[in-house]
Amino acid sequence: MKHPGRIRPRDIVRFQADKSSHDTDYVATEEPLEIRVRAGEAVQTLAVTMRTPGHDFELAAGFLFSEGLITSGDEIQSIEFCSDVDPGAEENIVHVNLRGDELPDLARLERHFMISSACGVCGKTSLASLEARGVGPVEDDLTIQAETIYGLGDKLRPKQAVFEVTGGLHAAGLFNQQGELLSLREDVGRHNAVDKVVGAALLAGEIPLSGRILMVSGRSSFEILQKALVARIPVVCAVSAPSSLAVELAARFGITLVGFLRPGRFNVYTVAERFVGLPPLKTTSDEPEEA
Amino acid sequence: MKHPGRIRPRDIVRFQADKSSHDTDYVATEEPLEIRVRAGEAVQTLAVTMRTPGHDFELAAGFLFSEGLITSGDEIQSIEFCSDVDPGAEENIVHVNLRGDELPDLARLERHFMISSACGVCGKTSLASLEARGVGPVEDDLTIQAETIYGLGDKLRPKQAVFEVTGGLHAAGLFNQQGELLSLREDVGRHNAVDKVVGAALLAGEIPLSGRILMVSGRSSFEILQKALVARIPVVCAVSAPSSLAVELAARFGITLVGFLRPGRFNVYTVAERFVGLPPLKTTSDEPEEA
Repeated sequence: MKHPGRIRPRDIVRFQADKSSHDTDYVATEEPLEIRVRAGEAVQTLAVTMRTPGHDFELAAGFLFSEGLITSGDEIQSIEFCSDVDPGAEENIVHVNLRGDELPDLARLERHFMISSACGVCGKTSLASLEARGVGPVEDDLTIQAETIYGLGDKLRPKQAVFEVTGGLHAAGLFNQQGELLSLREDVGRHNAVDKVVGAALLAGEIPLSGRILMVSGRSSFEILQKALVARIPVVCAVSAPSSLAVELAARFGITLVGFLRPGRFNVYTVAERFVGLPPLKTTSDEPEEA
Repeated sequence: MKHPGRIRPRDIVRFQADKSSHDTDYVATEEPLEIRVRAGEAVQTLAVTMRTPGHDFELAAGFLFSEGLITSGDEIQSIEFCSDVDPGAEENIVHVNLRGDELPDLARLERHFMISSACGVCGKTSLASLEARGVGPVEDDLTIQAETIYGLGDKLRPKQAVFEVTGGLHAAGLFNQQGELLSLREDVGRHNAVDKVVGAALLAGEIPLSGRILMVSGRSSFEILQKALVARIPVVCAVSAPSSLAVELAARFGITLVGFLRPGRFNVYTVAERFVGLPPLKTTSDEPEEA
């Protein structure tokens, strides 16, 4: 492949009309990047962001500049990967070394900090930290029909009130085994729409969400799968592609992950066994090699 | 409208083939939400997230639950908007009041904090804080032809190497006045792709990016426009819809914002004067009333 590290192969089950088949699909790599700034003896972590590896020094420089921590490239002495960490993590930590002996004023940034679901400095750490929180696999004996999944998009779209007007909003919908829409929330942020769906269930005393199906517009990422996992949702469907870390989380924690859910077709990336009447998914490693 | 506060009207210029016309479009509202947790006398801000107003208590509850700060809805005594702030901001701060006298352990979260571009507690504050940083309007005498804009998508897509394989990656491209692609970066996060494009320019000593055009896949948000503004890019184009705050930032800081850039058509949300041979855009308020 031309893009080592940026894409990863996965064995999938491809549904099209009334047929299903084993196939290989490639997903975009998602890994955390920790951006640190260093001046003289002082070092400070600025951000941990989920990103696709590649051009990481540019990402770090652009981030510092956009946030107003530097106003010119001349303020940067050098940028390097951290060499002082475990093998595998070193390319996920970037040090931006500034000229001068003092860090820029970070106080202004502090109130703008946002909690992210990004944790650890590599995908494996991110998954392990969920286990360290005591989050176990979703053991749910839900079975699903392909026809149910085919129908989800048609049920979600007409209810997306704001999307219809603006063409510009993400949505998350919660369905039961029969494909009936139980709740729908819209937001400029896909993660917010999922938080609203899960929060509504929490406030209604309906957690764990056993036997439920979550559908999101757009892509699926680590963050979306993490939210589904904590709420114990066994099936997650997305209109578009999953990231590598979304697939790895779903595989490790027993969530059925559906992608590219379009009229008459979809791909199943993990735990296809929940689909009734299918051959079992080929055994794949939970941590695939680089493509 | 059925969704007060969730959508906002904007006067736009609509291009289709070789025609342009004035029209009204509705954009999804984007405003910051600050989530605070309170137990006994202790209060702590957990996150500031850009979101579409509505179901904010669910959003806050779902966020605490997903992040592992609570494990059951029973731990929540009540949720309320903060009443102790300036008018206009009160519905952008949510207090989650927990039972018991102690805050949950937030230490674990701290290393997972991520800097966001969300700042302040309402859209106006977010824009004002950019001015407080000394960021002024983009005064760039770039003129553009509609044909140049029509052609950007066709130039970006064939170069999106990872997208072609995975179908699942965002892209940001930088173009000159003639519509020639100068640089392209891909990432699971649209904001990261923009940081990479801007960072590359910064490291090459090419800031300010006067006379340049930035194109992003998907939607445009406050965060994307903020990054373009700091890099002094006068024109931002997106394949999909802008948020309300993206439009407000573009209007306030003199950036031409193009949305729904599809084959043979696009919408101009702000500063349409840069298009050569057009009637001037109708005067619109920079801070439109709720729809």
